[in-house]
Amino acid sequence: MTELDRRFVISGAAALAAAPILSEAHPMTDIPAAWRGSEQIAMLVYPGMTALDLIGPQHFFASLMGAKVHLVGKTADPVVSDTGVRITPSATFDTCPRDLAVIFAPGGTAGTLAAMRDRATRDFMADRGARATWVTSVCTGSLILGAAGLLDGYRATSHWAARDALVDFGAIPTDARVVEDRSRVTGAGVTSGLDFGLTMVARLRDPTYAQAVQLQAEYDPHPPFSAGSPHTAPADVQAIVRPMLAGFADQARAVARELKRSPITLPPRGANPEGDMQ
Amino acid sequence: MTELDRRFVISGAAALAAAPILSEAHPMTDIPAAWRGSEQIAMLVYPGMTALDLIGPQHFFASLMGAKVHLVGKTADPVVSDTGVRITPSATFDTCPRDLAVIFAPGGTAGTLAAMRDRATRDFMADRGARATWVTSVCTGSLILGAAGLLDGYRATSHWAARDALVDFGAIPTDARVVEDRSRVTGAGVTSGLDFGLTMVARLRDPTYAQAVQLQAEYDPHPPFSAGSPHTAPADVQAIVRPMLAGFADQARAVARELKRSPITLPPRGANPEGDMQ
Repeated sequence: MTELDRRFVISGAAALAAAPILSEAHPMTDIPAAWRGSEQIAMLVYPGMTALDLIGPQHFFASLMGAKVHLVGKTADPVVSDTGVRITPSATFDTCPRDLAVIFAPGGTAGTLAAMRDRATRDFMADRGARATWVTSVCTGSLILGAAGLLDGYRATSHWAARDALVDFGAIPTDARVVEDRSRVTGAGVTSGLDFGLTMVARLRDPTYAQAVQLQAEYDPHPPFSAGSPHTAPADVQAIVRPMLAGFADQARAVARELKRSPITLPPRGANPEGDMQ
Repeated sequence: MTELDRRFVISGAAALAAAPILSEAHPMTDIPAAWRGSEQIAMLVYPGMTALDLIGPQHFFASLMGAKVHLVGKTADPVVSDTGVRITPSATFDTCPRDLAVIFAPGGTAGTLAAMRDRATRDFMADRGARATWVTSVCTGSLILGAAGLLDGYRATSHWAARDALVDFGAIPTDARVVEDRSRVTGAGVTSGLDFGLTMVARLRDPTYAQAVQLQAEYDPHPPFSAGSPHTAPADVQAIVRPMLAGFADQARAVARELKRSPITLPPRGANPEGDMQ
């Protein structure tokens, strides 16, 4: 194999994993034209977010050849996740493209409640969400969408322990791993981001492309236990976890009450000529 | 619910997700003493790594109450992943604790080959790996373990497209999602980090603790397709992905040949009074 062949193969391997970085430097003429897009994808990052809520979907969004994935912070300063991962935004509320194919919110616990309460965060999500083709989240990120007024009348999901609180934000809580309702796609707790990500790749390209990404990511899960859902976890395990998480939904509901006292100002409908399908 | 109750509940919720950060500030007296540890866990970070290889396992390691999880870079400078995620190390080769419960290497493509070729990275992994209780990886991270001389005679796995190259580093390639052989625990491609992480939580605590973490992370996978393994992916999908990845194993083998020409100097056996079980 020549050095040129080697570079082509690496660029091909990386194209599925890292399309936005490498595909332009190493164009691949054997890829169907329909597989190359030009989406602008914005993923909110904020202090106390759960890093896996972000990085699971990010891996799949980044596999979209031609797409640009922005990690968007309130400022350009690094944010520290709830497990201590320090991630630097690639864009800010000011520099993020205005018209997006996808806007995405990751979840968390205390940091998520703070993001829901933050006016600048809600305004950013409401503005970009009003025009985005897809408005999406994983885990308690759906509560941020809700706080920004983006889930009113939509079926949506969240982490199982927080899902019922969605009703306080006008959404219809729905018990499924990934919930699609028109332009809204929301994932359940943390690890659902992989199923969500693959679902989005299929929507933004096609099922064959999504399966190629799945094979590249070797997404053939074999959890060593069957305790990942309230429908499957043993009673003694639920007895440990439920009390730990029970208070979060109450606190999310308290944010909903606060926001009702000072309502969100949404952009006028006319500002959305082609984006939202509502 | 009082404000104090609310803070306790949040600290409980976060304890499973973010134990190292919050458990000391909010001690929980109702947790069995055996569930609190004091492990030092080091996760290698390097330019071009696959962020999901790192963040999947990191989520689970971070759920270990009392453990300290270090993201260890060659220097303190941020590293950029193969999909463009900028992560700042929390420790360096110089500041990382010398005696570790776990050393971990994430995978990647071109960046992984560069890490395998980097003398300082190999020396760091060989030094900490010689004393660590568990020597671990996900995806092509096992090739970094191999390049550091840490897999000689061990059964191990890697991304399916790179697995056979392990033989050139003295390992015994093994086709499984997570391969455990004495002190070595290696995961298959990218997303296996979730199954790997849960396996490690069970080893470092107990199966009940691991199941509680699984329920907290809602790890109840439902991939929308069944293409995550060469055993399950449709032929047309394999025909797309295999040529893209085929060259990587050849390049890993080339690194093995280079290293045979300039062998690794391992620390003397006497430097390892209690760590490695080999």
